Amino acid sequence: MPKINSVQTHLLRVLSLVYRHESISRTRLATSTGYSSFLISKLTERLLKGDFIREMGAGESSGGRPPTLLSINPGIGHLVGVHMGTINLRLAVTDMCGRVLAHKIEKSLVDKGPDEALNHLLETIFDLLKAARISRHKLSGVGMGISGLLDRERGITLSWPKVPSWANVPVRSFLEDNLGTFVEVDDTPRTMALAEKRYGKARNSEEFVYLTFGAGIGAALFLHGKLYAGQGGFAGEFGHTTIDEHGPLCSCGNRGCVEALVSASIIIRQAEEGLAMDLSPQLRLITQQNGGRVTLEGISSAAQANDRFCLGLLLETGVRVGTGIVSLVNLLNPELIVLGGGLPKAAGKWLLPSINRVVQERAMQGPSSQVSIVLSDLTEVDWARGAALLVSENALRSALLKAVGS
Amino acid sequence: MPKINSVQTHLLRVLSLVYRHESISRTRLATSTGYSSFLISKLTERLLKGDFIREMGAGESSGGRPPTLLSINPGIGHLVGVHMGTINLRLAVTDMCGRVLAHKIEKSLVDKGPDEALNHLLETIFDLLKAARISRHKLSGVGMGISGLLDRERGITLSWPKVPSWANVPVRSFLEDNLGTFVEVDDTPRTMALAEKRYGKARNSEEFVYLTFGAGIGAALFLHGKLYAGQGGFAGEFGHTTIDEHGPLCSCGNRGCVEALVSASIIIRQAEEGLAMDLSPQLRLITQQNGGRVTLEGISSAAQANDRFCLGLLLETGVRVGTGIVSLVNLLNPELIVLGGGLPKAAGKWLLPSINRVVQERAMQGPSSQVSIVLSDLTEVDWARGAALLVSENALRSALLKAVGS
Repeated sequence: MPKINSVQTHLLRVLSLVYRHESISRTRLATSTGYSSFLISKLTERLLKGDFIREMGAGESSGGRPPTLLSINPGIGHLVGVHMGTINLRLAVTDMCGRVLAHKIEKSLVDKGPDEALNHLLETIFDLLKAARISRHKLSGVGMGISGLLDRERGITLSWPKVPSWANVPVRSFLEDNLGTFVEVDDTPRTMALAEKRYGKARNSEEFVYLTFGAGIGAALFLHGKLYAGQGGFAGEFGHTTIDEHGPLCSCGNRGCVEALVSASIIIRQAEEGLAMDLSPQLRLITQQNGGRVTLEGISSAAQANDRFCLGLLLETGVRVGTGIVSLVNLLNPELIVLGGGLPKAAGKWLLPSINRVVQERAMQGPSSQVSIVLSDLTEVDWARGAALLVSENALRSALLKAVGS
Repeated sequence: MPKINSVQTHLLRVLSLVYRHESISRTRLATSTGYSSFLISKLTERLLKGDFIREMGAGESSGGRPPTLLSINPGIGHLVGVHMGTINLRLAVTDMCGRVLAHKIEKSLVDKGPDEALNHLLETIFDLLKAARISRHKLSGVGMGISGLLDRERGITLSWPKVPSWANVPVRSFLEDNLGTFVEVDDTPRTMALAEKRYGKARNSEEFVYLTFGAGIGAALFLHGKLYAGQGGFAGEFGHTTIDEHGPLCSCGNRGCVEALVSASIIIRQAEEGLAMDLSPQLRLITQQNGGRVTLEGISSAAQANDRFCLGLLLETGVRVGTGIVSLVNLLNPELIVLGGGLPKAAGKWLLPSINRVVQERAMQGPSSQVSIVLSDLTEVDWARGAALLVSENALRSALLKAVGS
């Protein structure tokens, strides 16, 4: 990576700040950087001339003439965001403002092994770039969230829960070699948290926890204003918080983890047992209409139709999730916990009240009075948009270096 | 607080860096700040002239002439550190290098109520300053760790576990008014973690967890290179991590918290039950020699003498603590966990192997392979030295402002 000189450092600092805010005045840029208004005026002039930023309408006045607001030129970079789950693949091509120019949701083919899955991913990226009319050479970077276990530094997968053959797969270099662009990978809870911070419910929060409930349970910790990944990038295994030291064995080898007691597949199995014992007339009806398949949505609809078995099942699930969240609230004292992923999307309405009740009852008074627990309202395409944010700062840097030379 | 201008900002930045390192070269100052060597040479010249810093012997050469190392002048400030536990009070007067000029350990009198405890604290501070021959007007600040529940922002106690009458006690303003100096308060696990970072086993760690096992269990999280306190300063309630959702009621209202299953008083009660049932001949002997009182040290000595009951008791305690630590390791992926406080001091030798075994068996492979769990070797006086660090940066700032004017 080429080094940048001190003028470029100043330009990049201002450009990053404009990027991070939807719009910002020169006065606020001066306050945030500590630069003089003279320097800010010179730097923004140069960024305006290079078409990196644009003047928008005027902002709110704090007395005198309302200040002109600056915002990023969306066209200075184009990013691809990828969210590769165990089952589904979500992709988006965005401009620098995060506007989606093309997107796609399909099967990830993770179970077919890395060769097939990665080649399929590459083809899908080419298709999408064509649909968005972005030349491959104009691509500023690819950010990718991966549900497998990662060595982020080296950009390789270490393993994939319940899928063999994903040990030591160099995902990042595969994409870099084939696309000739900058690539970053991280785990899906963290890329989803980036989406939540920029586009979702965590927009105004500097400290929050994002929990995702899909096939497994993941967490991302956003602390001191940035993602916290831990020593080796493994932080966030909230699913493997013990809530019952004598509980059932978990896939991780421990006992009584949250994930061993609550997961989409466990809830569905419990619902199937309820059906077999003829405890749930509404779910039977819904499942018959659904070709015999029990789904989270079906369980939620049955609850909606006042099916007592399904209501009880979701209530109990909420209590278990809530018990895990109690430890999280006591340990981290977060202001916000956002619940995302398939389970909250399908059944959050039923889970949230019992989660909140357990947290209010069981967590310590100080931290429990300060935490808001909310359901994410982001879509699967937003998850891909979030992954693209992994490479956005680098895209700004390259755009600047390309234009002003090094 | 008076504002500082930009030269002062640069001077303070360099002074802080010299302070944070025991010794540092001009070259490294330039790299760390991004300032030019010319600017660094001007700034250090000014700091040397003002006797803020001193030249020490030469450092190691990386080829040419070995660089001269700079270190802080220990005399530019004097700090008082206070560690106020539920039972004991530890105090130290230190210079800016953390050298202890005077110290004292005595009863905190917390149980006598805030009036008596705070007046006693104030008298002890006056005594100590006299012993250290530091005039009250030369004091740069007081940093204080408090085992009660705090509103750090306002510097008041909200409550004190198991001691009434500590609601809304303005500890900080009491000390500020009576000492006429800058005062900061924080909870004791965090001030102990500051000691561990500067003087103890966490010296080389940017991400670690400090756990303290005394009357209760506390934690401090050192993340992204600094203390993490959470939204309202309540972060770190590791003692209230659930490890058995159906376990015994805890004082916090939850069930099966680590603290409800493991604490000094619970271990002592279990040992007393063992004595009553005549299960522990060694402990009986040791307790008789100790005037009939069962202590952690006694239990540890009995274990040392191969008493099977006491060995079993400590082993089981280690398993319980380890089970809580598993969730911490999975969630935060820390490189280091330091165990401090009375219980590890008395019985760490017996606890650590079983803690490590549970963590290796139960935590996920990635994070468990990366974490070291170690026993603190700091003394109670070090805890007071750690509290003083709460006000050290402010002391540098005041010293600078006093000398160069504002």
